Amino acid sequence: MTDDPRLTPLAASLPPTVPFVGPEELERRRGAPFRARLGANESVFGPSPRAVAAMAEAAAESWKYGDSTSHDLRMALAVHHGVPPDSIIVGEGIDGLLGTLVRLVVGPGTPVVTSRGAYPTFNYHVAGFGGALHAIPFTADHEDPERLVAKAREVDARLVYFSNPDNPMGTWHDTATIARMRDALPRGSLLILDEAYADFAPSEAIPPMTPDDTRVIRMRTFSKAYGLAGARVGYAIGPAPLIAAFERVRNHFGMTRVSQVGAQAALQDQDWLASVTAQVAEGRARLGRIASDLGLSSIPSAANFVAIDCGGDGALARAVLEELGERGVFVRMPGVSPLDRCIRVSCGTPADLDIVEETLGPALAAAAARR
Amino acid sequence: MTDDPRLTPLAASLPPTVPFVGPEELERRRGAPFRARLGANESVFGPSPRAVAAMAEAAAESWKYGDSTSHDLRMALAVHHGVPPDSIIVGEGIDGLLGTLVRLVVGPGTPVVTSRGAYPTFNYHVAGFGGALHAIPFTADHEDPERLVAKAREVDARLVYFSNPDNPMGTWHDTATIARMRDALPRGSLLILDEAYADFAPSEAIPPMTPDDTRVIRMRTFSKAYGLAGARVGYAIGPAPLIAAFERVRNHFGMTRVSQVGAQAALQDQDWLASVTAQVAEGRARLGRIASDLGLSSIPSAANFVAIDCGGDGALARAVLEELGERGVFVRMPGVSPLDRCIRVSCGTPADLDIVEETLGPALAAAAARR
Repeated sequence: MTDDPRLTPLAASLPPTVPFVGPEELERRRGAPFRARLGANESVFGPSPRAVAAMAEAAAESWKYGDSTSHDLRMALAVHHGVPPDSIIVGEGIDGLLGTLVRLVVGPGTPVVTSRGAYPTFNYHVAGFGGALHAIPFTADHEDPERLVAKAREVDARLVYFSNPDNPMGTWHDTATIARMRDALPRGSLLILDEAYADFAPSEAIPPMTPDDTRVIRMRTFSKAYGLAGARVGYAIGPAPLIAAFERVRNHFGMTRVSQVGAQAALQDQDWLASVTAQVAEGRARLGRIASDLGLSSIPSAANFVAIDCGGDGALARAVLEELGERGVFVRMPGVSPLDRCIRVSCGTPADLDIVEETLGPALAAAAARR
Repeated sequence: MTDDPRLTPLAASLPPTVPFVGPEELERRRGAPFRARLGANESVFGPSPRAVAAMAEAAAESWKYGDSTSHDLRMALAVHHGVPPDSIIVGEGIDGLLGTLVRLVVGPGTPVVTSRGAYPTFNYHVAGFGGALHAIPFTADHEDPERLVAKAREVDARLVYFSNPDNPMGTWHDTATIARMRDALPRGSLLILDEAYADFAPSEAIPPMTPDDTRVIRMRTFSKAYGLAGARVGYAIGPAPLIAAFERVRNHFGMTRVSQVGAQAALQDQDWLASVTAQVAEGRARLGRIASDLGLSSIPSAANFVAIDCGGDGALARAVLEELGERGVFVRMPGVSPLDRCIRVSCGTPADLDIVEETLGPALAAAAARR
């Protein structure tokens, strides 16, 4: 039996592929741990020591279910962002929140617009609910607001996904551009503004919070600058009626107690956040230098990673990625042309970047020699 | 605007109610913490100290996403249960796994059978995907396998939910009864055997593991006897093709790093588990005595809670529950008649049960005086 006959037609139609193979699985396949873990845009600088201490202390309380409303964290976020608590929903990372949002809005054939090469997990959720995904190419390594809007109008999209700064290129648009995009979308369409990397971006990239605007939902996370990817804490900010609708389908007790406490402590330590983003900025600059020293260009990034142009096509970049992997360096790369001429390297510690500096040249040479 | 016009018709049709209001939310409403937290069948004895230590140590590693396959935990569970790893899926509690399973099997109108008064969160998921839920009354405070089978055959049910020991009454059936039920179900139906409370039950209640049997999926959790409700770790054991189908829709990186590590350490400490189940057995006996000392009967339980018959109807039990709440004791009660003549009290520490002993008589008297 290759499949279960009880699956719904939709479930039976879905591919068995997963959006991302995790680094632990890759390590098991290669039979050795990576020397530098720079493929998932995690924060190698770790979470705030205050968050670590709070989580360690909360571990003994794990016999209690977490607060199903993430009340204390949500109140702290409301203060932090200056928005009403009923405009915030906390969930199991942006991945989990995107899944719930897609479930609320997308059924078979529902038109959805995103960028070609943008976040695969969003596409996975849309496919998982049978939506019709329309993907617009990047333009000059940026998501293209005008073409996204045009497609949204053409297909009367219910959801339009836009990441700013974007993943996998790290480029960004300013608030005026985002406002124009929002204003030009068709009525009845919802702009998902994925701001997972907002904490690393210049202030010109971050619109003011306007949770009453029914046209936009913002996605934020503790997985990146706050260094808590493994704790699975994301949140969405949007119009209260839409946020309330999450209650109808979400896994109410899905947030762990330790994670709620950790995120709250991390939020309180803005000094740590500032220190991390400063180190990330240094890492971006150094990755640019490592690339240029090898005669390569890199894409100016507002995120905690840098896309390095390997100077060829997707096959060459794939070979570079594989050669880096054999040298113990875990990175990823964009999935579609022409973005896939690049590899995407997370901003590591100085020690991590020493390893990148030491291995990238040989990896490039070995990749070129394969041809 | 009272709703978001972009919701799917199904999402728009769902009620805003949630299956459970959590104890923290109840505490906020009453304006004071509970003295005894005995409403959610959590393990007041806590997790193994080895689990706590492992979680505290893992907190600093929370910058890394958790292993998306929960590989190490899954391997340990495979050894523990003597089943192949590909018959196990780890998820965000049984709640999360039930949601994913329902999503895989249930679409609008799909027939599903459960017991009236059984786990509300399962019903919530079925409603959330538009399934047609058929609920069979308990018989003599037990789920009724024969009537469940008869209804499953009548409606050609795709899913049949059966908890053993059951919640909210704590009663159980033996393996021969479960085997008869499984054998009598219609072809194309899947038996969900929810064994959240299996660790407290007599061995006669627990069938051997037969993961190749395509008719059954078993649900287990670290939330009850292992004392990790707040860590959200459940797992399902079933036929490999069905388990593989979870990969098509689940939130792959949804398991936190701390929780995976904690569950694995908890699993290794079977002495702690034995100590907890022994204390739970003492708690059950004492709750029975507390009830009988007040002239009340209680339902013999194979779980970590006892349903105490308040000797009247649902309104009386509801009043007793409220009076206990005013006295700082958090308990819950079944939602439907005639089960709702009872309150459901989790097995607390001796100090917790001292509080129950001290407050239950006055609460009964106050409830009776309301009439």
